[in-house]
Amino acid sequence: MSEDMGIQTKQDEDFGKWYLEVVRRGDFIDQRSPVKGFDVILPWGYAVWESIQQIFDRLIKSNGVKNAYFPLVIPEHLLKKEEEHFKGFRAEAFVITEAGGEKLEEKLYVRPTSETIMYYMYALWIRSYKDLPLLINQWNNVARFDTKITKPFIRGREFLWQEGHTAHATKEDAENWVKTVIKMYKHVYDMLALKPLILIRPKSDTFAGADFTVVFDTLTKDGKVVQGPDCHMLGQHFSKPFNIQYMDRDEKKRYVWQTSWGMSTRQIGILIMHHGDDKGAVLPPEVAPYQVVIIPILFTGKEEVVLKKCKEVESHLEQHGLRVYMDDRDHSAGFKFNEWELRGVPLRLEIGPKDIENNEVTAVSRLGDKKRIKITELGEVKKNLEGMQKSLAVHSEKFLLDNIRDVHNMNQLKDISKKGGFLRGNWCGSGECEEMIKTDSGGYEIRGTLYEKEEKPFAPCLYCGKPAKHVVYVAKAY
Amino acid sequence: MSEDMGIQTKQDEDFGKWYLEVVRRGDFIDQRSPVKGFDVILPWGYAVWESIQQIFDRLIKSNGVKNAYFPLVIPEHLLKKEEEHFKGFRAEAFVITEAGGEKLEEKLYVRPTSETIMYYMYALWIRSYKDLPLLINQWNNVARFDTKITKPFIRGREFLWQEGHTAHATKEDAENWVKTVIKMYKHVYDMLALKPLILIRPKSDTFAGADFTVVFDTLTKDGKVVQGPDCHMLGQHFSKPFNIQYMDRDEKKRYVWQTSWGMSTRQIGILIMHHGDDKGAVLPPEVAPYQVVIIPILFTGKEEVVLKKCKEVESHLEQHGLRVYMDDRDHSAGFKFNEWELRGVPLRLEIGPKDIENNEVTAVSRLGDKKRIKITELGEVKKNLEGMQKSLAVHSEKFLLDNIRDVHNMNQLKDISKKGGFLRGNWCGSGECEEMIKTDSGGYEIRGTLYEKEEKPFAPCLYCGKPAKHVVYVAKAY
Repeated sequence: MSEDMGIQTKQDEDFGKWYLEVVRRGDFIDQRSPVKGFDVILPWGYAVWESIQQIFDRLIKSNGVKNAYFPLVIPEHLLKKEEEHFKGFRAEAFVITEAGGEKLEEKLYVRPTSETIMYYMYALWIRSYKDLPLLINQWNNVARFDTKITKPFIRGREFLWQEGHTAHATKEDAENWVKTVIKMYKHVYDMLALKPLILIRPKSDTFAGADFTVVFDTLTKDGKVVQGPDCHMLGQHFSKPFNIQYMDRDEKKRYVWQTSWGMSTRQIGILIMHHGDDKGAVLPPEVAPYQVVIIPILFTGKEEVVLKKCKEVESHLEQHGLRVYMDDRDHSAGFKFNEWELRGVPLRLEIGPKDIENNEVTAVSRLGDKKRIKITELGEVKKNLEGMQKSLAVHSEKFLLDNIRDVHNMNQLKDISKKGGFLRGNWCGSGECEEMIKTDSGGYEIRGTLYEKEEKPFAPCLYCGKPAKHVVYVAKAY
Repeated sequence: MSEDMGIQTKQDEDFGKWYLEVVRRGDFIDQRSPVKGFDVILPWGYAVWESIQQIFDRLIKSNGVKNAYFPLVIPEHLLKKEEEHFKGFRAEAFVITEAGGEKLEEKLYVRPTSETIMYYMYALWIRSYKDLPLLINQWNNVARFDTKITKPFIRGREFLWQEGHTAHATKEDAENWVKTVIKMYKHVYDMLALKPLILIRPKSDTFAGADFTVVFDTLTKDGKVVQGPDCHMLGQHFSKPFNIQYMDRDEKKRYVWQTSWGMSTRQIGILIMHHGDDKGAVLPPEVAPYQVVIIPILFTGKEEVVLKKCKEVESHLEQHGLRVYMDDRDHSAGFKFNEWELRGVPLRLEIGPKDIENNEVTAVSRLGDKKRIKITELGEVKKNLEGMQKSLAVHSEKFLLDNIRDVHNMNQLKDISKKGGFLRGNWCGSGECEEMIKTDSGGYEIRGTLYEKEEKPFAPCLYCGKPAKHVVYVAKAY
C-alpha cells in the first residue's frame, strides 16, 4: 500500500469509476475474485452488513419472527411446481449436475431465492390454525446468473441477504403483515439515513408468483435509482401448488396466504452511492462499524503521553457505548485521515501534545465540521454523532424532494430527465405505453405507484394521451 | 401435533432412534427436506447455533479476527493448485456445470472449505510484514457429498460453520496462533459444558494439505466419540503454490505460514448426544435460547391473576438479563412441560393460583430438581442456572475420566472396548498397525495423541508388540 491513499476520481467526473475506487480502497468489496461476479466482501464492508443485520434481526424477532436455515439447493421438480416462478428464475440459475464424481439423477438448482424449498416444508409443518401465523426468516447466500455485473454490491452473481417467508390464515392477515414488514424496513432505512420512495411495482416488474410487490427505491448521487428491500404479497399462488392447508376453527381446510420479503448486501452499495462524496464513503453513525477513530498525533519524545491519553479517551467513549478504534498503526497521521475518511467513519478525534496541554481533543466530523472538545466534556461526542445522523437524514429527504419533478408528456419527460431523479407522471396502465415510455426516453422506466398514499392522476397518460389511471414515478435504474 | 408429546424411545433401547426423535420433535432439525442430506435447521436448533455464534464471534473479534465473505464457488483450476488438498475434496464435491441455461466453460465447485479461494485473495492482499498477521474468519455454508447421512447435524451434505484462515510471518507465530484458537474453542466448550479430549490426529487423518491437525473429540452417551472443532497448522503448503509472500523488514521476500480452523452446526448434535436423556435434549444455560420458561397453571376464574403474575415474573427476570419465555399458548400445561423438556430448556417455572397465594413459584430444573422460590427472591433463579451449568460441566468431566481405559494389547482392547469410551494404548507409529487395530477391533480407530501434554508410552505397540512411540486414544467414532 502506498502512503497517500485518497480517492483519485471525483464523483462528477466519473461516478462509476469513483464508486469502484471507493468500494475497493475503502475495504468494502474486492471484485478480483477468480470467479466472475462472485465478489469478496472485505472486512469493513462485512462489518457494515453485520450492523444492518443486528438492527433488522432484533426487529424481526421482536415481531415474532424466528430464524431457521433451509437447503442451498433445490431439486428441479420442486422449482417447476410454481410455473411463473420457475420461468422467472430458470434463466438465471446455477445448476449442479455432478456430485461425488458422478452425474446426478436430477439437477439441483442453487437457490436464487427459497420460496419453493421453504414452502415444501411449510406443507409438512402447517396443520391447524394454531400453527399460524408461521413467521420464518433466514440469513443466507443466494446465486443468480446476472449478466450485468459491473457494480459490486449492486449487481453480482452471489449475494448475502435475509429472506422472510410467512404463512397466514387470511388475506387480511397477510396484507397486515406486509405493512409490518414495510414498517421494519423503514426503521432500517432510518438507521441508514436513507429516504426512499416506497412503491408498488407495475405488473411487469412484480415478483414471479406474487400478487403485488412493494419496493424501496433510493436515489443515488448521480440521479439514478436503486432498488433496496422488497416485500411480496404472494396470495395463494404458492399455497395451492404446494398444498399448504390448515384446519380452521370451523373444521374446514383452507389454503394459507403468504408473503416473502428480502434485504441484501446491496444495501451497502446503496449507502455509498447515496451518501458518498469525493473523499469516499460516508457512513451514518447508527451503522458505522466504528463511530469514532482516535488518531494519536505523535511528536518525538511525547509518544507515551499522547498514546496514554488516547487510550483513556478510547475507554471512556467505549464505556459510553460507542464503537471506537484507536489507530496506533505504524502509518503517518495523514495516511490515517485519508483512510478513515475513505471508509466513511463519522468522527475522527485527533489528540496531540498541544491538545493534551489544553485538555481537549480535536474532533473532525466526516461532514467536514472541525471542533475542539474539552476532555471533561466527552459527552459532546455522542451529541455530535446524533447530530450527524440527523443531518444525513435531513439531507437525504431534501435530496429526494428536490429530485421529484412532474412531467405531463413525453417531450417534457425527455427534457427534464436530463436532470436525473424521479419524474412524476401519469399512466393509462397499458403495457405498450409502459414499454414505449422506456424505449422513447432512453431507459427511463415506470418504477411504480406510491404504496402509502393513493394519488389522483393530474394529466393524461404520458405516452398515449388517453385518460390516466395511475400517478407513476419514472426513473433510470441501476 | 398431538397433545402428548414425550419421546417414545429410551436412550438405552436404541440410541440412534432416540436421537432422531429428539432432534425432530425438539424443533432442532428436519430431515424431510426434498434433497437427501440437505436438512432443514429448525428455529429452536438455529437459535442454539446463534448462541454459539455469539459466544465465538465476540471471542475471535477480541483476538483481532475480522469477519469477511468469500465466494460460494471455486473454479476447478484453483482447487487443483494444492494437489493433496484437491485429492482430498474432489470425491465429495458438488459441481456446477450449467448457468443461465448454458454449459459453463470451467466447472465450478461448491466450496467444501475455502482455503483455495481465500488464499488466492491473500496473495493479492499481502505485500509487507505490516499486513501480517492477517486474521480472517467467515460464517458460511459448505457442501460435501458425504455418503453416510443418517445422523442429522453430525453428518450431512450441507452444514453451517465458521472457517478462520490466518497468515503469519513466522512458523512460531502460526503455532502460537494455533494455541490461541484452541483456547478459544475451549471457552466455547466450557459454555457448552462439554469436556473433550483435545488430540493431534495421526497422519492418516490429518487435513489434506496440513502439517498437523488438532481436534476436539467428545464422548456421546452411547460410548462413541464425535469430532467437534478442528484447527490445522498449514505450514507453507498453501503459501507456496498460491504464492503468498511478504516483504520482510530485511527487504527479503518470504512465504507466509498459515492456519485454518472451523466449528460447525455439528456442535448442536454433539450437545444433544452428550447431555441428552430419556426426556430429550438438555441445554446448558449459557447456550439455551430460553434459559427459563414460565408456564401459567390456569384454573377457571383465576386466569387473569395468574397470567398477570407470570408477566411480572417474566419482565423481572428479563431485566436481570435472563432469556425468558412465558408460554401462554393454547395448550395444556402437561403438553408444555413435555415440549420444553424435550427442547432442553434449563429451568421451568410453574405459576398457579396456589403459588400466588404463597407468594412463590415452583421451579423445576431440567435435571429434575424441584424447588419453591419466593417471588421476592427471584435472584435464586440465576443461582439455580449457574448451578446447573456447573453441574453439567462436572458431570461431563467425570463422564470423560470414567471412560478412558488403559489397554495393553489387542485382546484386552477387544474385551474392554465393549464398554465404549476411549481406550488408551500404545502405538509404534506404523500405518499398518493403525489399519489393523481398526480392522481387528471392529472399528476402534486411533483418534490421536494428547495436544496439551506429551505422554510416555507405558507398554509396547498394541498391535505388533514392538516398542511404542506414542500413547494414543482409540475409540469408535460417528
